[in-house]
This record gives sequence, structure tokens and C-alpha cells, in this order.
Amino acid sequence: MNKEEIELLKKEVFEANLLLHNYKLAIHTWGNVSGITKDRKYMVIKPSGVSYETMTYKDMVVVDLDNNIIDSKNNPSTDTPTHTLIYKNNPKIKGIVHTHSPYAVAWAQAGKNIPLFGTTHADNFYGPVPCTRELSDEEINGEYEHNTGLVILEHFIKNKIDFSAMPAVLVKEHGPFTWSDKSSKSAVDLALTLEEVAKMAFFTQIINPKKISANKTLQEKHYSRKHGVNSYYGQSNKK
Amino acid sequence: MNKEEIELLKKEVFEANLLLHNYKLAIHTWGNVSGITKDRKYMVIKPSGVSYETMTYKDMVVVDLDNNIIDSKNNPSTDTPTHTLIYKNNPKIKGIVHTHSPYAVAWAQAGKNIPLFGTTHADNFYGPVPCTRELSDEEINGEYEHNTGLVILEHFIKNKIDFSAMPAVLVKEHGPFTWSDKSSKSAVDLALTLEEVAKMAFFTQIINPKKISANKTLQEKHYSRKHGVNSYYGQSNKK
Amino acid sequence: MNKEEIELLKKEVFEANLLLHNYKLAIHTWGNVSGITKDRKYMVIKPSGVSYETMTYKDMVVVDLDNNIIDSKNNPSTDTPTHTLIYKNNPKIKGIVHTHSPYAVAWAQAGKNIPLFGTTHADNFYGPVPCTRELSDEEINGEYEHNTGLVILEHFIKNKIDFSAMPAVLVKEHGPFTWSDKSSKSAVDLALTLEEVAKMAFFTQIINPKKISANKTLQEKHYSRKHGVNSYYGQSNKK
Amino acid sequence: MNKEEIELLKKEVFEANLLLHNYKLAIHTWGNVSGITKDRKYMVIKPSGVSYETMTYKDMVVVDLDNNIIDSKNNPSTDTPTHTLIYKNNPKIKGIVHTHSPYAVAWAQAGKNIPLFGTTHADNFYGPVPCTRELSDEEINGEYEHNTGLVILEHFIKNKIDFSAMPAVLVKEHGPFTWSDKSSKSAVDLALTLEEVAKMAFFTQIINPKKISANKTLQEKHYSRKHGVNSYYGQSNKK
Repeated sequence: MNKEEIELLKKEVFEANLLLHNYKLAIHTWGNVSGITKDRKYMVIKPSGVSYETMTYKDMVVVDLDNNIIDSKNNPSTDTPTHTLIYKNNPKIKGIVHTHSPYAVAWAQAGKNIPLFGTTHADNFYGPVPCTRELSDEEINGEYEHNTGLVILEHFIKNKIDFSAMPAVLVKEHGPFTWSDKSSKSAVDLALTLEEVAKMAFFTQIINPKKISANKTLQEKHYSRKHGVNSYYGQSNKK
Repeated sequence: MNKEEIELLKKEVFEANLLLHNYKLAIHTWGNVSGITKDRKYMVIKPSGVSYETMTYKDMVVVDLDNNIIDSKNNPSTDTPTHTLIYKNNPKIKGIVHTHSPYAVAWAQAGKNIPLFGTTHADNFYGPVPCTRELSDEEINGEYEHNTGLVILEHFIKNKIDFSAMPAVLVKEHGPFTWSDKSSKSAVDLALTLEEVAKMAFFTQIINPKKISANKTLQEKHYSRKHGVNSYYGQSNKK
Repeated sequence: MNKEEIELLKKEVFEANLLLHNYKLAIHTWGNVSGITKDRKYMVIKPSGVSYETMTYKDMVVVDLDNNIIDSKNNPSTDTPTHTLIYKNNPKIKGIVHTHSPYAVAWAQAGKNIPLFGTTHADNFYGPVPCTRELSDEEINGEYEHNTGLVILEHFIKNKIDFSAMPAVLVKEHGPFTWSDKSSKSAVDLALTLEEVAKMAFFTQIINPKKISANKTLQEKHYSRKHGVNSYYGQSNKK
Repeated sequence: MNKEEIELLKKEVFEANLLLHNYKLAIHTWGNVSGITKDRKYMVIKPSGVSYETMTYKDMVVVDLDNNIIDSKNNPSTDTPTHTLIYKNNPKIKGIVHTHSPYAVAWAQAGKNIPLFGTTHADNFYGPVPCTRELSDEEINGEYEHNTGLVILEHFIKNKIDFSAMPAVLVKEHGPFTWSDKSSKSAVDLALTLEEVAKMAFFTQIINPKKISANKTLQEKHYSRKHGVNSYYGQSNKK
């Protein structure tokens, strides 16, 4: 374990958790953000039930990917086993976020995918944002948070959804998770994007209840403007 | 009467009232927060109709549980008899809050329980948040605020609802009350939680009008993650 | 004309206009607040189309009740003739406010009274907040702003509504006006209350489309708690 | 090319972009504002994908009206060809804005014009705010951003809509553009006005689903109060 890397990761994850609060995606002690070391052996995550106001970067908890606490005086977020399972199965993911942001939660509680209604959505998520199935009683009464991760993986595998192209999921009757191949900060940015997209879809469905989906070609165009080899949004493609 | 305890309680209740305003759960002079002494003989509450901007902790009013003013130049909140009756009948409650937060008020005005649609709700309230019956004309024209308390008690007793497991109620055509076994500050935190849950339920019902309730096993799981002997959320259960 | 009184009134009206902006009831240069001198000969009002950011108290415009500019380098608010007509016909009113706050405007655009659904409304407005009839083409093409005032008066007289008990109106397809027998500041406070009440009614109607009105006895009770000889809310009735 | 003018325009366009962010019309790097030189040869626009927090006025990109980068280390906004086409075809327009503000986007995603329901709308936009047709697959896969501009022009020409009287459009399944004959700052102010009007129309339609439109005479009156030779709103018409 590289102590310097851990120290830096704790600071990064701490800042990302504060950003979650500043974006108003979490009240009280709700929500959590994690990051992972380069060797993908250790995850840093928010401690459970600690207030954003009093928390310092030193309160961040280090666990291994089997959910053992490696370095902390605190309990990690109860959602830790959901995070570790997603990291284990997705070697590219560098940050994961869970929030209770109200519009995204509402779609999750309603048990509905967020329909792709326009370019704001298409710029960021490839297709409707999926909502998982309900967990069974056995899954809930067993290793609940681990099983939540399993249900997410099951949904993506079964429906052939790519975690990089769809960096978000709604867990039914629970709420959203987002992730990023870049950083924990970037996963928080996606959590805000998801809430904005969930809000717009909510309004759209009320204005036009018959609306099913935006034009498929428009979806492809907008997603590929921002992602992949032919992307031309931003500065990284500067000739 | 322990003067030092009263002084500290006035400060605590004052801060909790300010928090109500900072959480944007009350505009103008609306809403009120109270706390109680350890011997449960005296209650400290916001003065009636005093602005949050000009109020100091010395403006807080001390009453006994029969609603007699013990120490103050001010009238106490008009809702005082509702607060005292709840304290009298619930020896564990340490703080009570009344707000006019808009989503919770809307459910109260609609005369509907807030359905339990997901884990955000289940984490904090055990079952749907109940809405009382209307007061009769006699109850309104009699000791109105005392009778408001009686109607709350009646609802909880008749429906076998536990005040600790359900720290919130909607008074029909009026608005929400929340309480806490911990402190007045904690009761204000619950008032914010209630507003967030009321908002999410409002959105959920619009997205999926057929949705009745979340999975019962999920409710039990999430409530017990945060409450009771087997709770494992937060830091107090640290081994 | 008492120059000192005018100077003080300009400052009061200026502060009340800023409050309108701080309460987020008006964006850009929208909305206006006025006050009146004790002899009820002069009205002070916001200048037309001047930004809240750059405005000073010296920009306030003095007019007489026939809408002649008495003292100003600026044009008064275009709504000036609506204000003066309300003052002329209501010798008790001390401040008037016009806003474009979105929920109140929505009820006005829908051409509907705001139903009295609960105590938040009943505490402040005696009965549903009325929406006027449409102006005729002749009224619009004639002295439009004066005729807007006439339509308000007509509605209150025809329906026997008291301006003190109902300090608000929605002008159809336009927006809200509020007023106060106390001050221009108090009229702005009522404009915020109206927006809050309009929002709650909007939510209530969505949750329960069959809801018509709150209990009449409850209305009477809450209005009389705050208004009239038997009021017992606040501090002014302190024995 | 007048270097001093360009320098001033960069500062103006930079400030207008910040205002977009301060008005909360754009999160992350979303949205863009442009301005044009007096000779109408050069456009200054926000760089693509650069954060509002770190951006300085020197990051603004200068292009000619054929979308060639004239002076910048950055890529211009991907929407550049939409802006330049609108400038080319409208010699009076001095500033253009594109946002993803949620209520305006919702109407665009729903594929509906924003109905003119009242005076807030009529004060600023002459008639319903139009929503364009969908782009064809060929238009999307071809010069997409240029074609977006063409579809806007087509809609205005076909429906005989004047760009000065209707300084806004919704591009179907995408979002709003606004513009101004005064400045880029003024175009941002209109983007906020549009969002407010879109929100009010959304609420209005829910309260009264049968509402089609406000009175036509009222529309004319309010638009002409603020625009044209007989306008009497504001200070510029001061005698």
C-alpha cells in the first residue's frame, strides 16, 4: 500500500464528497463517494453517517475490495459492498457515487427507466438510464448491499449495457448510482447531470405524455460528439 | 427550576429555530421549535410572531406543561398547547417542530398519508407518514391547539403507531409536526427529511400514478439498518 | 408636500423594492412597490424599467393620485395608474406591490381563483384569492392600467370582498397585486406569502384533484387567530 | 480586424457567459454565448467544454463567419456554426445564447411551442415561442450544427416570424436559443426570461389543461408597451 497515494486519494475523495453536498445532491449525512487506488486493491470512501459540515479528509475510510477496513477509526459507508463489487467487475472505473437526489430517486421509486428525450441526455448517457429489478426478500435479508451490486451487474450484463457508455443506474425503490472512468470528481459531476436529466424528463413527460423517445440518429450524433475517436466537443481533440 | 439548564436549553432551542429558517422550511415568522428540561416540567419554545432576523436566544419563552408562562416578556408560539400535550404523553421526546414546508403541507392539505415509496423514506419513517382526521367544529371552536394535540394522539393510539418509529405527522388541512427522542436540533433535521420525502413522493406519484408502496421487506431492512439493536449505519455501533 | 416625509417614504419604498428582488419574486426590472404619504396626496413608486442592481432610493418617483409626476428625473412604473386607483378607493391601504412570481402568475394565467386548501392560506387571506375577469378590448386599448385598477375594484365590490381581509388579487392573464394597511414592506411580505400559498395549492390540486376547499370553521379560526379583536397570534395582544 | 474592439468584445462575451452561469441557466460547461464585431466579420464565442470556474476572458475564441478560428488556442463551442448562420442572416443581431435550462428544454423535448398564456410572455416575445421540426437523418449526419441553424431559419421564414419580435426558438429534442439586437448580455437576460416564461406556461397548463392562449388584444398591448415607436415602458422614451 502506497501511503502517499492513499493520502492523496483520501483528499480527492473528501473533496468529491463535499462537492456532492455543494451541488445539493445530498442533505444531512446522505450520499457517498468513493475512489480506488491504481493497483485496484484499496478503495477510499466516506465514513457512514458523518456530517458534511464536520468531516475532514482524515475521516475517509480505506477498505480492501473484500470490504475489510484497512485504515480508519470510522465505519465506512454502509453502501461499501455495492461500490467494491462495481469496481471489481469494471477495471476502468475510478470513482463511484450514490445520492438521494430527488428527481432521480423519484424515477427509481416509480420503477421506471429515465427515457431519452433529448440531447442533454444523449450528450451524457447512451440510451435510457436503466432501472434495475426489485431485490427478492432473500437478497434483501442476505448480504443486502453486496446483492444490490449484483442486481446492478445482472441488469447491465442481461441487457448488454456498457458501463462506460452508461455511467448511471437507478436501483429500484432506492436511488441512483453514477461512476466514471476518470475520477471520483467526474462521477459527482455525472450525478448532477443525472439529476438535471431526470428533472427535464419529468417535465417533458408532463407536457407531452405521448412522447416516447428522441430521434435515434440524434442520440448517436450527440453521444459521439462527446465520446469516442470522432468526438469533437471540448479541447482534448485540439489539432 | 435549574436556571443554568434553562439558559442552555434556550440557546439550543434558539439555534434549532434558526436552523429551521436556514433550511428554508419556514418563511417570515412561521414555524416553531421547542425543547424540554430533563425533569420534564418546563418547555422552551419560540415566541409567537417574532421574526427570525431579529430574534435572540433571550426571546425564547419558558412555559410549564400546563401552558403557563414561567419566564418571558413574550407570548409563546400559539401552537404551545399542541407541543406540551405531545411531551406529556411521550416521556422520551426531547424536541418538537412545526413547519409550513410546502410539499409536506400539500400532502396535509390533500388529506393524504405520504406513501412509503422507497428507501429514503424507509430509512427515517417506519411506514407511510400519517395524516390525521379533520377536527370537528367543536374541537376547532374549543381549545383548538390542545385539541390538535389530542387528534394527533388519537391517530397514533387508534392506529397503533409508535412515536419513536414514526417521528412525524400531518395535521389535516394544516401541516407537519416532527419530533425527536434526541434533541430539538434532531427534530429540525427530521423536518427537513420529511420535506424531502414529501417532495420525492409527489414526483413519484406523478411519474407512476399506479405505484402504491415499496416492498415491505425493503422497508424493514432500511429502517433496521438505521434503528434498533441490529442497526449498522453510522458510527455509534463501532466495535 | 412634506419634504422630510417624502425622503423617508422614498427610502422605505426603495428598501421594499429591494426586498421584492431578495425574496426572488422579481427578476430583471420586473415588479414594483409603492407607498403613500399620510395626507394621501402623493405616492412614491419604483421607476419604470430600472434595474434592481443599479437603482438608488433617489430614483424613486413621486406622483400625485392623478398620476402626474411631481418629483423625478425618471418615468414611474407603467402600472402607476393601477396603484393610484387602489389607493384612492381604499383610504386604509399604505403599500401596494405587483410581481410576476411564477406560481401566482400561473393561477392568473389559468384564470382561476387560488382555492383555500389549508391554514397557511387561512392565516393570511380570508377566502380563496380572487382572479378578476378579462379586460375587454376597449378597456385594453383605452387607459389600460387605469382600467386594470377598475376591474380589480369591480371584482371586490361585486363579490363583496373586503380589501383588508383579502389583501391580494390575481389579474387574469397578467399576475398578482398585494397590498397592506401597514406599510409597503408588509405588502411585499404578503407577496411572498401569496407565492408560497399559490405553490402549496398547486401541489395540493395535483395530489388530490377532488379537493375543493378546507373546512370553513377552520378558515374562520385561523383568520381570527391572527386578525381582529380576538386575535392571539404575535406579541401586540400581550396582556 | 480592430484588436481593441476584439479585446473589448472578448470581455463582454466572457462576462455574458459568466452571467449565464450565475443565472443558473447552465451547469458544468454547458451553454454558450457569442457576440459579433461591428463590421460583422468576426464572432467571439465561449470555448468548447471549458469550465465556467476556471475560464478567463482570454479563453474566448474569435472565428470568422465561415467558422474558421482566427485567434485562439482553444476550440470554439461546437454550436459555432449555428451561431454564425443566425448572424449572417440577421444583420441586426448582436448577441446569441444557447442554454440547457430545464423548463425550456422540456418544451423542446416535448416538441411543443410555448403557448402565450399571459403578459409576462407578451412583454417579451411576440406570439408563442416556436419549436422547430426535427432534423432529418441526413441533416444530423451532415453538417449538423450548420443544419440546426438552417432549420431555425426555415421555421422563421416559413411561418413569417420576425427575429426581432421573437428573439427565441426551441430546437426540437435539443433546447433553446435566444438572441438580441442590443448585446450578448441582453441575449442572456432573454434566456432567463424564456426559462421563467417556460416555467409559468408549464404550471399554467397543469392548473388549466384547457387553456389555449391569452387574449390577442392583451398580447398586442403588452408587446407594444415595451417595443416600437409607441412603447412607454422604461426610461428611453422620457420626454
